Amino acid sequence: MREFAFIDWLRRRTPADPRVLAGPGDDCAVLAASEQPWLVTTDMLLEGSHFQLAEAGGYRVGRKAMAVNLSDIAAMAGIPFAAVVSVGLPRGSDNLAQELHRGLSEMADEFGAAIVGGDTNSWDNGLAISVTLLGHPSPRGAVLRAGAQPGDWLMVTGPLGGSIVGRHFDFMPRVSEALELQRTVRLHAMIDVSDGLAQDAHHLCRESGCGAVLFADAIPIHPDVRRLTDGKTPLQHALGDGEDFELAFAVSPEDGIRLLATQPITGITLHRVGEFLNDGYFLEENGQRQPLTPHGYQHEF
Amino acid sequence: MREFAFIDWLRRRTPADPRVLAGPGDDCAVLAASEQPWLVTTDMLLEGSHFQLAEAGGYRVGRKAMAVNLSDIAAMAGIPFAAVVSVGLPRGSDNLAQELHRGLSEMADEFGAAIVGGDTNSWDNGLAISVTLLGHPSPRGAVLRAGAQPGDWLMVTGPLGGSIVGRHFDFMPRVSEALELQRTVRLHAMIDVSDGLAQDAHHLCRESGCGAVLFADAIPIHPDVRRLTDGKTPLQHALGDGEDFELAFAVSPEDGIRLLATQPITGITLHRVGEFLNDGYFLEENGQRQPLTPHGYQHEF
Repeated sequence: MREFAFIDWLRRRTPADPRVLAGPGDDCAVLAASEQPWLVTTDMLLEGSHFQLAEAGGYRVGRKAMAVNLSDIAAMAGIPFAAVVSVGLPRGSDNLAQELHRGLSEMADEFGAAIVGGDTNSWDNGLAISVTLLGHPSPRGAVLRAGAQPGDWLMVTGPLGGSIVGRHFDFMPRVSEALELQRTVRLHAMIDVSDGLAQDAHHLCRESGCGAVLFADAIPIHPDVRRLTDGKTPLQHALGDGEDFELAFAVSPEDGIRLLATQPITGITLHRVGEFLNDGYFLEENGQRQPLTPHGYQHEF
Repeated sequence: MREFAFIDWLRRRTPADPRVLAGPGDDCAVLAASEQPWLVTTDMLLEGSHFQLAEAGGYRVGRKAMAVNLSDIAAMAGIPFAAVVSVGLPRGSDNLAQELHRGLSEMADEFGAAIVGGDTNSWDNGLAISVTLLGHPSPRGAVLRAGAQPGDWLMVTGPLGGSIVGRHFDFMPRVSEALELQRTVRLHAMIDVSDGLAQDAHHLCRESGCGAVLFADAIPIHPDVRRLTDGKTPLQHALGDGEDFELAFAVSPEDGIRLLATQPITGITLHRVGEFLNDGYFLEENGQRQPLTPHGYQHEF
């Protein structure tokens, strides 16, 4: 499919959103002004590094390329709006562009984002796909990584570990859950778990200028972990695997207690997995605190 | 340089723009609301396809990756604002990230765009770099590809052809020239010459629903063409080479006459290279019109 034909095809599929004043086919897309600030995020997926194309297929790669960006918008409690996609296609890959686009647009449609532009190229290397997603904070504002306070609870939206079994392709970004959470409590800080809880909780500490302790016994382990037989413990998987795309967030103990007691978010169970401290970074296991390194998957317990 | 260190480094270099509420280092960048609409464009450069890394070096590749996006903003008579960059680095390329960033940020700074986020990855393939650039239309509005009228003049901002000699890396995007033009005349339609004049003028026709004739004798040939010895004529180079990144635009004959007579744009000479028609697509040479194909570089005269 030539670039030109691809743009035609893309244009026919672009959802009619009155805020999209000009979509694919011009030098730039034109988006209407908004009274809200804008969120911008970009993520690139690379063949051989993030996925094996023969295994995953173009549809799942396209789906994931959009979903990881949606997850970044979720991590700010944002509302997705519009995306552009650039692709480097391995030469001779006939239906790959269509398969990618099917995955991209299915996921974008699901979350109300319009694909408003793109750049399609061929080359003699593996598949490279980059999505930039724009969105808006909810009226309550964007939730940053900075803002966790010592004494705050660290909570997560679901079980962790073993996403490599397949969940890292098929996860649903926690966009609506984040918005529901933000309507329910005051979110002090939030991040999506992409690098692994050990690393992502450390990002929250770093940006918030505080420390934390994670409670080994309280970290929910995903059943997928049981399907891995690489000698790591379930806890190591939960802390280090990454690509869970659950949300990790900081709330006051009062809000945390309320969330645990009422479990108000549709379809998920919230867990308290740690507490923020003045400084230091620890794992508490059997009543003992030991230093934790942020690079969960490099760490041997 | 690890991703984390790269983000720190990027953050230290991000220009302080009060409209950037949160820059690199969070899940998304946060940009202030604006009363103007938004322009969004994305372009990807791929090693071996768009450049040879060993020849060009990271600095020039980074510079071009930003410049081609700036040129798309120029083609709408837009004002650049903020960019995000995603990169797939060949594993083991030590200073490449810094060299790329030097080129990216130099070009962004030159045109007042802040680099507000990015995604840096390594893989076992060639360099892939994708930039998404956001901007705003000037108060006079965005100039689309659609809008040329039969009878309009087709004009260009400078000489064409032979950019492969080096100009395709070192060109300056026509951002200020476009804005100056828009203050001077009513621009009916505009595009930047990236695919070659034959193809890009055809894009204008296609989007405007009209035809055009290009005047062979009037097309300004860049002196770089003389340095090419591949047997093509200078005109073939000017029509087909592409990556000139000059602007091609449609104006009324009255405005065109005025532009030719006064040459009001600082530092460049405007040329009339064709005229829009009701339909058909032609090259006029020695008083004869012959059909022209949009794919200039595939066409043999």
